[in-house]
Formats: sequence, structure tokens, C-alpha cells
Amino acid sequence: MVHQRVRLGILTIAHEARRVEFGYLRGQLELTAGNLSQHLTVLETAGLVEVEKGYAGRRGRTWITLTAAGNTALAEEIGRLKQLIARVDAAETGESG
Amino acid sequence: MVHQRVRLGILTIAHEARRVEFGYLRGQLELTAGNLSQHLTVLETAGLVEVEKGYAGRRGRTWITLTAAGNTALAEEIGRLKQLIARVDAAETGESG
Repeated sequence: MVHQRVRLGILTIAHEARRVEFGYLRGQLELTAGNLSQHLTVLETAGLVEVEKGYAGRRGRTWITLTAAGNTALAEEIGRLKQLIARVDAAETGESG
Repeated sequence: MVHQRVRLGILTIAHEARRVEFGYLRGQLELTAGNLSQHLTVLETAGLVEVEKGYAGRRGRTWITLTAAGNTALAEEIGRLKQLIARVDAAETGESG
């Protein structure tokens, strides 16, 4: 679930700020609105992000916040990726010998 | 393509050895034979692995080898993941301040 690349990107960006705006996320990840919405629904259903609709002046805005569970899931995925990278790097070292 | 988790695992394991046997890969990645075959077909079509059928005694065996293009694709993906991890780690440091 979290290992899906777009969703990992969403969690990473949401992790950097208290909350992130839909349009910003869309621009950063170079996604269509429909595609981003689908991934957010998956993450929201899993309890990893909260999605709030609000206003900035007259304009509708959607804000995304990482939940505590989302933060944990991101940390776990980063741990797994570090192990994978260490494995590739160890093999590189072996090759040079 | 490479960022798909199972395929990244296949490339990582193939990267560690000159060639890797289908059953070993399947056990390491905890996949069904059908699922592993599908991912190998995707990787082979993209030119990232070579799949050879042979024999070990009377038994059929399938061997997987990482190609030069596969090695490059793996290195690029590892580079992208390192950037993503650095970004998450940088945000962690910011939070503690």
C-alpha cells in the first residue's frame, strides 16, 4: 500500500508540512487531479491521511494532513527501503573486489 | 516500471549474483509462480533481465540474469530512493528543533 510510488510521494510531502494543499501536491507529483484524488482516497481509507475541504477566500481548497498512523507507515517504509539500498550497496562493494 | 516493489526486489536479488534461479527468487520474495512469472515477463520485455530455461539433472530450471540496462535502471532507482529518504530524514530533523 505505502510502497506504491505515488502514495509514498504523497506521504513524504505531507510529512514535511503540518498540512499540504491539493494543488501543491498535484504539481509536485505531476499528477492529474483525478489520479491524485484516487490515491488520496486509498490513503484516507487506510487512515494514513486526513482530507479536509475548506476555503481560501472564495476558492475551495482541499488540505491533506498526515495522521499518526501515516507517519508510522512512512517510517516503516523508509526503514525497508534503507535495508534494500544497503543490500544493493553491499553487492556493489563485492563486485569491485 | 522499476519502482514497482516486487520488480525492484527481483532486480536487487539478481544484482547480487551472476544469475538467480526462479525457485530461489520465488521463495525470497514470497510470491506465487504465476505472479513471479508475470513480473519477469514485464522486466524481460523491458530488457532489464534475461530469462533462460535449462536443466539441473533431469529437472527443468529457469535462470534469471540482470542485463546491463537492468543494472543501470536499478542504480537509478536506488538514487531516487536515496533522495526520497534524505527528504524524509531532513524533515525529521526539522521536527525535533
